[in-house]
Amino acid sequence: MKHRDNLIRHVRITPIAFRDGPLLNASGIHEPWALRAIVEIETSDGRVGLGETYGDEPMLRALETAKPLLQGLSPFDLNEMEQRVRAAFKPAAAAALNAGAVEFTLAPGSHTAKNAAKVTSAFEVAMLDLQGQLLNAPVVDLLGGAVRKAVPYSAYLFYKFAEHIEKPYAPDAWGEGLSPEQMVAQARRMVELYGFQSIKVKGGVFEPAHEIATMRALREAFPKHPLRLDPNANWSLETCIQAAEELDELLEYYEDPTPTLEGMTVLAKHCKSPLATNMVVTTMEEFRRNVELGRGVRIVLSDHHYWGGLRATQALGRMCEVFDLGLSMHSNSHLGISLMAMTHVAAAVPNVSHACDTHYPWQEEEVIAGGRIAFEDGAVAVPGKPGLGVELDRAALARLHEQYLSCGVRNRDDLKQMRKYQPDFSGKSPRF
Amino acid sequence: MKHRDNLIRHVRITPIAFRDGPLLNASGIHEPWALRAIVEIETSDGRVGLGETYGDEPMLRALETAKPLLQGLSPFDLNEMEQRVRAAFKPAAAAALNAGAVEFTLAPGSHTAKNAAKVTSAFEVAMLDLQGQLLNAPVVDLLGGAVRKAVPYSAYLFYKFAEHIEKPYAPDAWGEGLSPEQMVAQARRMVELYGFQSIKVKGGVFEPAHEIATMRALREAFPKHPLRLDPNANWSLETCIQAAEELDELLEYYEDPTPTLEGMTVLAKHCKSPLATNMVVTTMEEFRRNVELGRGVRIVLSDHHYWGGLRATQALGRMCEVFDLGLSMHSNSHLGISLMAMTHVAAAVPNVSHACDTHYPWQEEEVIAGGRIAFEDGAVAVPGKPGLGVELDRAALARLHEQYLSCGVRNRDDLKQMRKYQPDFSGKSPRF
Ligand SMILES: [Mg+2]
Ligand SMILES: [Mg+2]
Repeated sequence: MKHRDNLIRHVRITPIAFRDGPLLNASGIHEPWALRAIVEIETSDGRVGLGETYGDEPMLRALETAKPLLQGLSPFDLNEMEQRVRAAFKPAAAAALNAGAVEFTLAPGSHTAKNAAKVTSAFEVAMLDLQGQLLNAPVVDLLGGAVRKAVPYSAYLFYKFAEHIEKPYAPDAWGEGLSPEQMVAQARRMVELYGFQSIKVKGGVFEPAHEIATMRALREAFPKHPLRLDPNANWSLETCIQAAEELDELLEYYEDPTPTLEGMTVLAKHCKSPLATNMVVTTMEEFRRNVELGRGVRIVLSDHHYWGGLRATQALGRMCEVFDLGLSMHSNSHLGISLMAMTHVAAAVPNVSHACDTHYPWQEEEVIAGGRIAFEDGAVAVPGKPGLGVELDRAALARLHEQYLSCGVRNRDDLKQMRKYQPDFSGKSPRF
Repeated sequence: MKHRDNLIRHVRITPIAFRDGPLLNASGIHEPWALRAIVEIETSDGRVGLGETYGDEPMLRALETAKPLLQGLSPFDLNEMEQRVRAAFKPAAAAALNAGAVEFTLAPGSHTAKNAAKVTSAFEVAMLDLQGQLLNAPVVDLLGGAVRKAVPYSAYLFYKFAEHIEKPYAPDAWGEGLSPEQMVAQARRMVELYGFQSIKVKGGVFEPAHEIATMRALREAFPKHPLRLDPNANWSLETCIQAAEELDELLEYYEDPTPTLEGMTVLAKHCKSPLATNMVVTTMEEFRRNVELGRGVRIVLSDHHYWGGLRATQALGRMCEVFDLGLSMHSNSHLGISLMAMTHVAAAVPNVSHACDTHYPWQEEEVIAGGRIAFEDGAVAVPGKPGLGVELDRAALARLHEQYLSCGVRNRDDLKQMRKYQPDFSGKSPRF
């Protein structure tokens, strides 16, 4: 079997840091440096498959722990890889291997499924990239082919300061975004630059009345754009119910306004907007729980980085269809490898019902050759090149890794960063 | 994109008939000829991808109706193909296109999801066979690779007569199978010839006491083989509950003893053996209903022919894992193309929890080059050849098609056949 001649020989995990804006959220504010890990899986013929995932220390440890599991596998052994990763990250094994990992120490055993899913995803994307290169086919064709030529993304607005408190580099071009008027200006710029046709606001930052005023201002300025508000579980159930009447008229979906699946389940009975989540339905177990509780959450924001990869995201798509749930996509701060993986899988899932989220416009740096990926009319064209369709810019990778080494950030901490601006910032959740 | 140079040019559907034994079941008895349809999808470079599916008239009409939907597609366009098939088989479209199809006339609209799934599956398998040939990779590697080297099947026992009433050809080598002793002899022969390590009995034929006596005799003769009994919904709920106490000790699972998901849901509270089904959880909608009713059915017997293909079967596998359901595989009378498709997908689904069913030992004829597929220790080795790993024997295809033309069977009718033996056979269900 010629396609199996090339076995996996090396796995490299390179942590990187890139500039990130002073973006406000429920937890606090983004630090000046966002972390990611670049995954390179190399086969015996010297081909390299790429993946991109979280760069915090527990994830780096999990990836290093899992590297030897790829020994002897071909890039076509996705199922076997997943089985090995799951076995290695079973509670007992995980506790022994990785005692310092946050998920394990906070709640022993309870989130191990997610760790396995994250590692599986990081490896799967790189292995699919290799498959595509070996077969001369784009990843989307290994997922059953594209049902759309381009994947629509949403304009992802953030309340923000004009500049980081440390002034580590020149301020970004977006300016301050605090008032409704400033948020409309931010939206105008983002829509002009990228052509987005849906608008999302990261909320949970200010009093709900202020955020609702922002949504009203956006509705006036963009009468045809579907709008979303994501308070990131920072509103009490009571606050959410009070806000629902006004928001029902404004929103295509109401994203994670309140914590816990139980809270969302109650809220669903008090609002017309469908509830969406990337916080309380994040694993297959939570998917099941939402079904058992009567499907208060109606839209799942998928994310291949923690759902177990591109193929697991396809399965999630079929499950959303079976249980009559909408489907969109969540993002964290990320670069082009992730954006391409998101685009390949979203192109292959027919029932993506809402434009996907992406932080991409907030990033200025890149790790891929050719620089930043283009959007047209708010969408990314599905690439036709073999594999993911992107290559590493090795000089950029080295530079971003240097930034990682020198930036001092090892685990994202938006709360600690916020206290540099407001020493008495409580970080309490829900705060409103 | 070189792999996309070859578009689909021709689709050929050839109905065939092959000899089938006088096998008894809840509906009656197998006719002397079993029907299948052989699907050939040919690309512009003359490659042919193979599929095998039902050969009854409604299915042949559905396939003919759907052929033009493949126009302009590459074998890599599985998702687009599925979308087109679903659109074409939506209630209104289906009613217009295919007014004579049984599913549509009996219950307009209600089973269209299944028609779309059946056609999707038939096309998908042939397209995956083409992909594998184009990429020089076995189908299992297009499904994420094998997690097992061989797929275990079960010995599928039938109560049977020694010979068909019409004596259309020489009797088979299995002889009569009516008494518990004869069934033990049938099991011994099947286990000796094929090495099966699980045993299933197609029940619903005789009084439950007789079938339970058969299971007891098998348990004595095969103390280590897991046993299954499938009364094919021919027992009333009351009969099932009465039988459960004895069967709980004997069975690895209790397969479709009683009709309706609601009946199975009640029965589950009265027996220890897990309930398995290929009758009441046969679509994604029914999967959901079983979950909503509390998962009375604990083992889903998948079948790519009606679940929507090999990739849908993988998704079903993930869904069974999420909802903590076991997974095995159902079969109808079939030849080697289906057996290979079943083997590729079962090799790629980690959580197949029980040996798969196959009627294959009951068939003597074949349509593939090289003749009958071998079993070793009850399992079929996962092929490493490109695609499905089988080729058509065109002389055999022509011969089996001639048999189709001359045999007179156009729609399977086990009840009509049974009345040739017992003119007063009621066909009532449940009968016991
Ligand atoms: Mg969110
Ligand atoms: Mg059955």
